[in-house]
Amino acid sequence: MVKDCSTDTVAQAVREYEGVTRKRVIGDMVRSLWVDSPDIIASFGEDAAVIRHNAEDALLLAADGIWSKLMEADPFWAGYCAVLVNVHDIAAMGGRPVAMVDILSVTNNLTRDEVTRGMVAASAQFGVPIVGGHLHPDTPYNVVDVAILGTARMDQVIFSDTAEEGDQVVAAIDLDGRIHPSCCFNWDSVTMKPAEVVRAQIRVMEDLGKERLVTAGKDISNPGVIGTLGMLLEVSEKGAVIDLEAIPRPDLSALGLPFEQWVRMYPGMGFILTVKKENVEEVCRRFADVGMAAAPIGEVNGGRKLTVRYLGRETQVFDLDQNGIMRIFTEGEVCR
Amino acid sequence: MVKDCSTDTVAQAVREYEGVTRKRVIGDMVRSLWVDSPDIIASFGEDAAVIRHNAEDALLLAADGIWSKLMEADPFWAGYCAVLVNVHDIAAMGGRPVAMVDILSVTNNLTRDEVTRGMVAASAQFGVPIVGGHLHPDTPYNVVDVAILGTARMDQVIFSDTAEEGDQVVAAIDLDGRIHPSCCFNWDSVTMKPAEVVRAQIRVMEDLGKERLVTAGKDISNPGVIGTLGMLLEVSEKGAVIDLEAIPRPDLSALGLPFEQWVRMYPGMGFILTVKKENVEEVCRRFADVGMAAAPIGEVNGGRKLTVRYLGRETQVFDLDQNGIMRIFTEGEVCR
Repeated sequence: MVKDCSTDTVAQAVREYEGVTRKRVIGDMVRSLWVDSPDIIASFGEDAAVIRHNAEDALLLAADGIWSKLMEADPFWAGYCAVLVNVHDIAAMGGRPVAMVDILSVTNNLTRDEVTRGMVAASAQFGVPIVGGHLHPDTPYNVVDVAILGTARMDQVIFSDTAEEGDQVVAAIDLDGRIHPSCCFNWDSVTMKPAEVVRAQIRVMEDLGKERLVTAGKDISNPGVIGTLGMLLEVSEKGAVIDLEAIPRPDLSALGLPFEQWVRMYPGMGFILTVKKENVEEVCRRFADVGMAAAPIGEVNGGRKLTVRYLGRETQVFDLDQNGIMRIFTEGEVCR
Repeated sequence: MVKDCSTDTVAQAVREYEGVTRKRVIGDMVRSLWVDSPDIIASFGEDAAVIRHNAEDALLLAADGIWSKLMEADPFWAGYCAVLVNVHDIAAMGGRPVAMVDILSVTNNLTRDEVTRGMVAASAQFGVPIVGGHLHPDTPYNVVDVAILGTARMDQVIFSDTAEEGDQVVAAIDLDGRIHPSCCFNWDSVTMKPAEVVRAQIRVMEDLGKERLVTAGKDISNPGVIGTLGMLLEVSEKGAVIDLEAIPRPDLSALGLPFEQWVRMYPGMGFILTVKKENVEEVCRRFADVGMAAAPIGEVNGGRKLTVRYLGRETQVFDLDQNGIMRIFTEGEVCR
């Protein structure tokens, strides 16, 4: 049983979480930026854009910046995370991360060195080189942005918008970690791990893509496990009911961590996937093999609502028809 | 004759220009970020990183941000330039720009909309789609960073560090433009041009790469034409003497523009190249065909000094042995 948990408190906490509400402006941006191009297989709404390179190969391109709050709190961790979230973006698509570029704006040399140290640590650990970028050594603010290039076979790409009715929702999270001392919404399961462990975790997604073992997927990011699932369902134009108790979690009472905080955390390594029933066991086994807890937590349905269930009670978190999270599709556009 | 021009004033103006001096911290950064990887053919010191994709194909990856000063002065132009400088980076390498991602941090919706409008205008004009990115809608600062993916055949890539003794230095600049009203160091030759004109200018570099008509090249960026040549010579470990009067320029007196300001300007379309003597005429013709003024302005030599010459007088601008611009190589590293 999950301590101090009710479907209402969790639904409200997720709905009102800044990590979720900040996503709302994305739709307006996407509509402004939209350019039609035949080789762009997927763009906004996906963790990485998918660009057809030739008949077999796709190129993946993504970019992510770090919240300024984190940059101020812990520049090393901000630099580390700038790399981590980009590696997640490529892994989530079933791709292989190849290289990154960074743009760093700093007010002083100490911050520059700390952010750089964080980026270098993650780059070396995940084996993805930083190959270029841009430095503004004298700005009135501290910002680090990273972009990443990945590759994949065209038929290996995992999209977000391809979940199907009847699919199982699988959450996979590395529970062996700690609340990061600089940010109570970051579950750090990575900094303390050897390179081969985190690289194997990233490779699982590539293998799942190659073997077509999942129907859709995303990395669990700022909106947390439920918010990220909401985004996946939004672009897939589906709904789901999930069981709160089934969500993989560490010993929350030992950590003094309320359940509604856990489900809003950004895990160091976590993915939300949709999987055909017959593949759920195999998918969970692959994650278990690399030290990640994976479990089916609910089922995709044809409605467009995300509902959480606990002790027989159900509460709707998002009505994706009425209140999309990213609101990309409110005017009928499609991403691909 | 160039009005109000002396080799001393020009040399000093270039040497002390912020666009040049800001490059000095690059070397420290590069040494921190350096990761050895067999598929990374080139990284720091080049306008874009070159990554081996397979035996024939290279992938190009670059990122650039916009000076905060420009972001404050004119968010539309900042957004436009964020795209423009990235397209330049790929063109400079002899590649084809494929797609971009942006990371936008804004304090308010008006700035967001203006920057976006600028990015969209340039993206549509140059035919390079923005395929994803990240938006921070609520930061205490306004920053736009863009990264770009390009492609090239492995044998078509134009590097910066391959200038050879005896090569002619060719400067190619579109002179048909205006001092940008928001920034007196931006020579805007692009916003007023039809898409087919600017795309043809970008394609010249791709053709020069394919036909191996240049030995090295860079786009003329913040350090201006002489500063950019200095960076090319620095990584090539060469020197040059150039004639100030040979540098292509618009009617400076009509514009009220001092020569030492012209040579520090960021042109909307401009490249500095090194070319074998026998190819100079052909290279200049290619640029003339797309409305750009191109001319040989000097010769590469084996020294490591960049010297400017005017009316029989010579002044050294950079001693690249003693005072590199980017200072990447001061501890003996090489870029590739």
